[in-house]
Amino acid sequence: MSLKVVVIGGGSSYTPEIMEGIIRRHHQLPVTEIVLVDVEDGQEKLEIIGRLAERMIEKAQKPIKLSWTLDRKKALENADFVSTQIRVGGLEAREKDERIPLSHGFIGQETNGAGGILKAFRTIPVLLEIAQDVHRICPNAWMINFTNPAGMVTEALLKHSPHKKVIGVCNIPYNMRHSTAEILDADPDQVRIDFVGLNHFVFGQKVYVNGHDRTNEVLTSLASEDLNYSPANIVSLGWTKEFVNSLKLLPNPYHQYYYQTKEVLAKDVKAFQENGTRAQVVQELEKALFAIYDNPDLQVKPKELEERGGAFYSDVACSLMDSIYNNKEDIQTVNTFNNGAIEDLPNDAVVEANCVITNNGPKPVTIGSLPAAVKGDILQMKAFEELVITASITGDYHQAYQAFLANPLIKDEKRIQPLLDELLEAHKEYLPQFAKKRGS
Amino acid sequence: MSLKVVVIGGGSSYTPEIMEGIIRRHHQLPVTEIVLVDVEDGQEKLEIIGRLAERMIEKAQKPIKLSWTLDRKKALENADFVSTQIRVGGLEAREKDERIPLSHGFIGQETNGAGGILKAFRTIPVLLEIAQDVHRICPNAWMINFTNPAGMVTEALLKHSPHKKVIGVCNIPYNMRHSTAEILDADPDQVRIDFVGLNHFVFGQKVYVNGHDRTNEVLTSLASEDLNYSPANIVSLGWTKEFVNSLKLLPNPYHQYYYQTKEVLAKDVKAFQENGTRAQVVQELEKALFAIYDNPDLQVKPKELEERGGAFYSDVACSLMDSIYNNKEDIQTVNTFNNGAIEDLPNDAVVEANCVITNNGPKPVTIGSLPAAVKGDILQMKAFEELVITASITGDYHQAYQAFLANPLIKDEKRIQPLLDELLEAHKEYLPQFAKKRGS
Amino acid sequence: MSLKVVVIGGGSSYTPEIMEGIIRRHHQLPVTEIVLVDVEDGQEKLEIIGRLAERMIEKAQKPIKLSWTLDRKKALENADFVSTQIRVGGLEAREKDERIPLSHGFIGQETNGAGGILKAFRTIPVLLEIAQDVHRICPNAWMINFTNPAGMVTEALLKHSPHKKVIGVCNIPYNMRHSTAEILDADPDQVRIDFVGLNHFVFGQKVYVNGHDRTNEVLTSLASEDLNYSPANIVSLGWTKEFVNSLKLLPNPYHQYYYQTKEVLAKDVKAFQENGTRAQVVQELEKALFAIYDNPDLQVKPKELEERGGAFYSDVACSLMDSIYNNKEDIQTVNTFNNGAIEDLPNDAVVEANCVITNNGPKPVTIGSLPAAVKGDILQMKAFEELVITASITGDYHQAYQAFLANPLIKDEKRIQPLLDELLEAHKEYLPQFAKKRGS
Amino acid sequence: MSLKVVVIGGGSSYTPEIMEGIIRRHHQLPVTEIVLVDVEDGQEKLEIIGRLAERMIEKAQKPIKLSWTLDRKKALENADFVSTQIRVGGLEAREKDERIPLSHGFIGQETNGAGGILKAFRTIPVLLEIAQDVHRICPNAWMINFTNPAGMVTEALLKHSPHKKVIGVCNIPYNMRHSTAEILDADPDQVRIDFVGLNHFVFGQKVYVNGHDRTNEVLTSLASEDLNYSPANIVSLGWTKEFVNSLKLLPNPYHQYYYQTKEVLAKDVKAFQENGTRAQVVQELEKALFAIYDNPDLQVKPKELEERGGAFYSDVACSLMDSIYNNKEDIQTVNTFNNGAIEDLPNDAVVEANCVITNNGPKPVTIGSLPAAVKGDILQMKAFEELVITASITGDYHQAYQAFLANPLIKDEKRIQPLLDELLEAHKEYLPQFAKKRGS
Repeated sequence: MSLKVVVIGGGSSYTPEIMEGIIRRHHQLPVTEIVLVDVEDGQEKLEIIGRLAERMIEKAQKPIKLSWTLDRKKALENADFVSTQIRVGGLEAREKDERIPLSHGFIGQETNGAGGILKAFRTIPVLLEIAQDVHRICPNAWMINFTNPAGMVTEALLKHSPHKKVIGVCNIPYNMRHSTAEILDADPDQVRIDFVGLNHFVFGQKVYVNGHDRTNEVLTSLASEDLNYSPANIVSLGWTKEFVNSLKLLPNPYHQYYYQTKEVLAKDVKAFQENGTRAQVVQELEKALFAIYDNPDLQVKPKELEERGGAFYSDVACSLMDSIYNNKEDIQTVNTFNNGAIEDLPNDAVVEANCVITNNGPKPVTIGSLPAAVKGDILQMKAFEELVITASITGDYHQAYQAFLANPLIKDEKRIQPLLDELLEAHKEYLPQFAKKRGS
Repeated sequence: MSLKVVVIGGGSSYTPEIMEGIIRRHHQLPVTEIVLVDVEDGQEKLEIIGRLAERMIEKAQKPIKLSWTLDRKKALENADFVSTQIRVGGLEAREKDERIPLSHGFIGQETNGAGGILKAFRTIPVLLEIAQDVHRICPNAWMINFTNPAGMVTEALLKHSPHKKVIGVCNIPYNMRHSTAEILDADPDQVRIDFVGLNHFVFGQKVYVNGHDRTNEVLTSLASEDLNYSPANIVSLGWTKEFVNSLKLLPNPYHQYYYQTKEVLAKDVKAFQENGTRAQVVQELEKALFAIYDNPDLQVKPKELEERGGAFYSDVACSLMDSIYNNKEDIQTVNTFNNGAIEDLPNDAVVEANCVITNNGPKPVTIGSLPAAVKGDILQMKAFEELVITASITGDYHQAYQAFLANPLIKDEKRIQPLLDELLEAHKEYLPQFAKKRGS
Repeated sequence: MSLKVVVIGGGSSYTPEIMEGIIRRHHQLPVTEIVLVDVEDGQEKLEIIGRLAERMIEKAQKPIKLSWTLDRKKALENADFVSTQIRVGGLEAREKDERIPLSHGFIGQETNGAGGILKAFRTIPVLLEIAQDVHRICPNAWMINFTNPAGMVTEALLKHSPHKKVIGVCNIPYNMRHSTAEILDADPDQVRIDFVGLNHFVFGQKVYVNGHDRTNEVLTSLASEDLNYSPANIVSLGWTKEFVNSLKLLPNPYHQYYYQTKEVLAKDVKAFQENGTRAQVVQELEKALFAIYDNPDLQVKPKELEERGGAFYSDVACSLMDSIYNNKEDIQTVNTFNNGAIEDLPNDAVVEANCVITNNGPKPVTIGSLPAAVKGDILQMKAFEELVITASITGDYHQAYQAFLANPLIKDEKRIQPLLDELLEAHKEYLPQFAKKRGS
Repeated sequence: MSLKVVVIGGGSSYTPEIMEGIIRRHHQLPVTEIVLVDVEDGQEKLEIIGRLAERMIEKAQKPIKLSWTLDRKKALENADFVSTQIRVGGLEAREKDERIPLSHGFIGQETNGAGGILKAFRTIPVLLEIAQDVHRICPNAWMINFTNPAGMVTEALLKHSPHKKVIGVCNIPYNMRHSTAEILDADPDQVRIDFVGLNHFVFGQKVYVNGHDRTNEVLTSLASEDLNYSPANIVSLGWTKEFVNSLKLLPNPYHQYYYQTKEVLAKDVKAFQENGTRAQVVQELEKALFAIYDNPDLQVKPKELEERGGAFYSDVACSLMDSIYNNKEDIQTVNTFNNGAIEDLPNDAVVEANCVITNNGPKPVTIGSLPAAVKGDILQMKAFEELVITASITGDYHQAYQAFLANPLIKDEKRIQPLLDELLEAHKEYLPQFAKKRGS
């Protein structure tokens, strides 16, 4: 009996984490084969990761066959799980997503605002191709996507690819649960947060420990800045008491872009002037990480990895594979079709929701209405996401314009055209769908 | 630490089952006190049941304080769980619900057709009163209702009583799961049926064993009559191959009233002529059961109880209390607000659905659309139920007429008035809300 | 400037009515050309009608070019309006739709029950073909369908044909408005009925004369049988006072099949034994009508035509053409997509609703919720219609079975298979889509 | 036969317009009595207007009885129409709504952003009182509200007052239709715009002249700035070609606040520094107007009135009264419950929509889905409006905070508290509901 995992984007600096996750769960998730796949530009990194992964398996003494390759189609044969963690255009593209909007006076961020839109434009077509391969070559495999913007990518795949076994994951709900557990001095496994919303726009409504409502304690900690669950890559600016007391919701770290826009913009402009973009910082971090990975004595995931923003991402993915494989029917927070869970959103909108995980996929637990205080913001983000997905596929200039206008961080009819034009031009290598001359 | 269960309708012949359920689960559901409550007419039965329950606890050597009383308000003090299993008007009223419709040429049944409507008319106001008491006296208690018609009663309470911690249970999904497990030679705990629909009008969409889809095997067994999960009180007439193959759904035993109306009516008329109504048969059964219960040597639930139709009802209730108490987050099939689980029904329609059971109540797992083949029937039943609930509360003759007209087993504008009038007259003792002279 | 009307099914006995309607409105609807189209089997009738139409135009001295042909595609060139009034299989097929269900103990009727389903099965594929021709040959033409079952046919076309300029019409709302006007001694143009529901399952909610609510007077007349708006082909059985007072709605004549099923069945069995089917009666009527039409001295629509059931059908169609052509923005009752008008039905369900008629088509006026008393029945009919439409197109036996089961006049799992099999066999000449061997 | 119109806020400078509208339509809308009502602070203006109105009636020689009073309850007796055009706190309050937000760096405008919210806070409770009076004293009267923010006020009344005969009107759709007619050289009565959205956030989707689609011509004019339908009080900044070509929608003048925020803010800051607030400008204008009104030789509406922003407002109201009175069933654009017209909004959301006007009120014509490009913005505005309405009634500080956060012109968690606190303090005289100490 075989159980094969294919990691697309296997040369990512996060891969040691997924390796560790699989090794640690091997008694219940008996993976027999892992293939790491990457593209030609990533070959060198792939080799380094491949060798480290090999050492990790050896040290753990698990009967897992490991290989790495540039041949995606070959790799997919007989796969049971396919994780996708790619970055189309690499950190160079990210650097543009951050720098160009900033130079036009807008937030420049990897998954929010203009940067996030362009990342979607580059990424969605590539993942649609991968999903088509999966559907043809290993139609029973579950795709677990942690490529950002994970919510939009997942919705694009579920709506527009023939492969329907797709689940999106993110480490934000995981982080929020773990940080909250810490504040409450509780075991994270006993903490349940009632999440509501979208990827990178999710709120916590209630926090339960063993079923007991402890939301108020958490809100108090948040207002007093005792609780900070921002990942390494997002500096928390804190939340005012009035905000916390008025909403009675746990924001996620990305909400600062929307509710503290001026401060974040000022901070980012300053950081850019001092250190360049976050992409450039990360490039340095990655260089250092790969140097560590390349050390032939290293046989485990190095703790330096946790300093990257996406820590625990892979842990989330491994838990999910485990529950699917073992039909655990436990509850995890993933990105999937709403299917009625949130009353105010269409059934085929992808939401980030608590789901029962079965080997027939995640089934959202019903939530009811959106909280009135953030209903408008969530509805707007979803409508925005739909425009991005459509434009990603059609490459239509006017739809791209609509997506920019619909984004609450842009929404400036006189400044969109120069910003959009510069971004399309800067990324044109990765945007073949936009190649046709834009209409007037 | 105390854990108190109050059984309203404690003199019911089913009570030994709930006693056994509590005793058996005592290590995880450490009940400290049970009070059996009944009305004056049921005092004699209550005594018999009370003494049997006492012997059961003694034999099991559990530290449970037991008492029985006619004082409902007193009993409710500090209750944690309140189970309701009452029969307003007793078996005499049931006898009328069965006989009178039959004499007008209609199905006469306890929870379906005209009989079910009248049972709702008698029962809903009484349960609303009980719910008000619960809300005032023990507002944190969960009401677990297994009084029929359980779906309508639960919707009436959730919509019209101040107490919102109400869950409706039925043994039909339990029976279907267990019978299916038997046919598949599987452990019932590993069988999951995707149920969709309403109480006594629920269908099984998919049958999984450990997450593997085995629906087709079950359908084949059903079409070949190898599978029969009818409870003792419903004689199965079998289902045609064409029906099973066309719907690809598991009907529940009560569906025979709707899809085999002529056969059931003919059979019931014949049975009535030979043995009187089912109520009369049950009266004999109950007499025999109580004779057994009254035997001072009996210290356990006697197996004769299983021959009554509602076997396992109480087992279902005990499982539910266990999962709420322990915040198990497991999946059980109960009656609660739809809340988006079924796309085609309003959020505040009570459905019989697979729910995650937490100590904050049941949360339905999303289902999506109704199966096209039975969508119309389910929508009609729900619309009918809404009319019954309204008429139960207002006592409005025209609304009662509407409910009769909307019922697929009646729907006969020229025959409703005499049938309705005779039923209202026959039951008038228990229908104070209908006392005001009906309008023309 | 040309204005061309094509009448598909031009050999129908109703055509003189549409001719008269066009001639009468010529000052505001200046039709320049009419082509009558029929199939080979109807050639003889087409000739007779064609010659009569010619005499009518001549007598009226209107500059309308008239022709008749079997070449549908040729006829459609440059058409502005295409009316469709066909009968696939002719009255012979209708005779089977009436006789066969009756012989199995079910209502046998042209547009309701098993007969209506088979009529849909025969008709929908042919109209889809016509709509494809229209879309290719005269894409700007409005199709005005009065082929029954008009609601289902219209929904099938709007959902499954490329041509979206399709409107369904029926004379029932027209009749109800005119009969009501008579009872109220009012000008029909000043009477507005708030209709709600589906074709042949529509109810009147409110009756206004010049905006003044006179519903109660109308209901009183209905209950006292002073008001009878049944068309010639449906014998009214009257409605009980309790029914009228409880619903406070105006039923349409076809509702007798659903609410007076036993009486109608008994009456129809008796009528069949005495006179054969309605189809056979109509065959005689038609023979007599065509003898009249063939009289070279006849130059107008003969009043004998009004004795046929469908009187005013064509008048409805001509009013509609007039309002579209002149962008009148008046309100007419037609069959079109719900588009939100009725809250409880999906947007793409075809309803019979009051619409603002513009030259961009009909736009339903919002209605709100279905009346509670008939909500379940209307939802069930719509779910049933969806099954019929699907089965009409796929020719899938199991879907046909589902449609039969979902029909409130059938819904009998043990009797469907023999009934369905006999009907499919009897009509097989006109049901190529069902030719493939049915699955087990 | 009497027909009485009561004008609440009769001392408004707009009243001569409504007088003229009534006089002009007197042959079809035979008003017999007009009462102008105002509050004590407005007595002087009321006198001036009253005398002018008297002279206008005299000059026109219409048999209309006119009076003016401070006794609202008396005035309402036997009213058929009640128009409401009040300004709680007068222009002094408006001045604060404009100045204070500006001083915090936000748009300061009468019906948008923080100013619009405070205007709602002051206005909604007063109009709820008026509606209660209307409901008690003249329950059959139609209230025609043109008090801003008209959409929110109308929703508050329809949802929270016992009086349900309430319609909201605005001159924006009227202006857009008339300006468009001019550009197209068409009679305004033959121009129909398919509007979609909310008051002050409405878009034109299609422009038809006599049913012929001329949208593209209008969009071209708009992009080339030939078309400018901004009212006198809003300086148009023009729309970029890319905006117009991408959306293919007609924005309304108020959209500049949302899509040209930076430019508008800069312009308003500059204007404020040069001329003070718009309120101050209007105060001067009003002073001048009333001087003109007070001239005993003036017997008609002076043309200087058109230079005020709200021109045609009253014309809209008179048209509406005419169509209601005469049950015209014509189409007008008013604010009323959505009732299904727009798929994406709840039935009880007030929208600005094309409605059939009957003497039973306006019935929206179905629209379907919101245009994707602005779906998110419209949904957000509606969610925001709901928060404002709730906070207006409860006076809850946290809900007020939520409303500020949800407004796209504010949405800045760190700056809301000082802004909100200053505004609540400045307006406290008119905000009794907020008097209770705000929670922490």
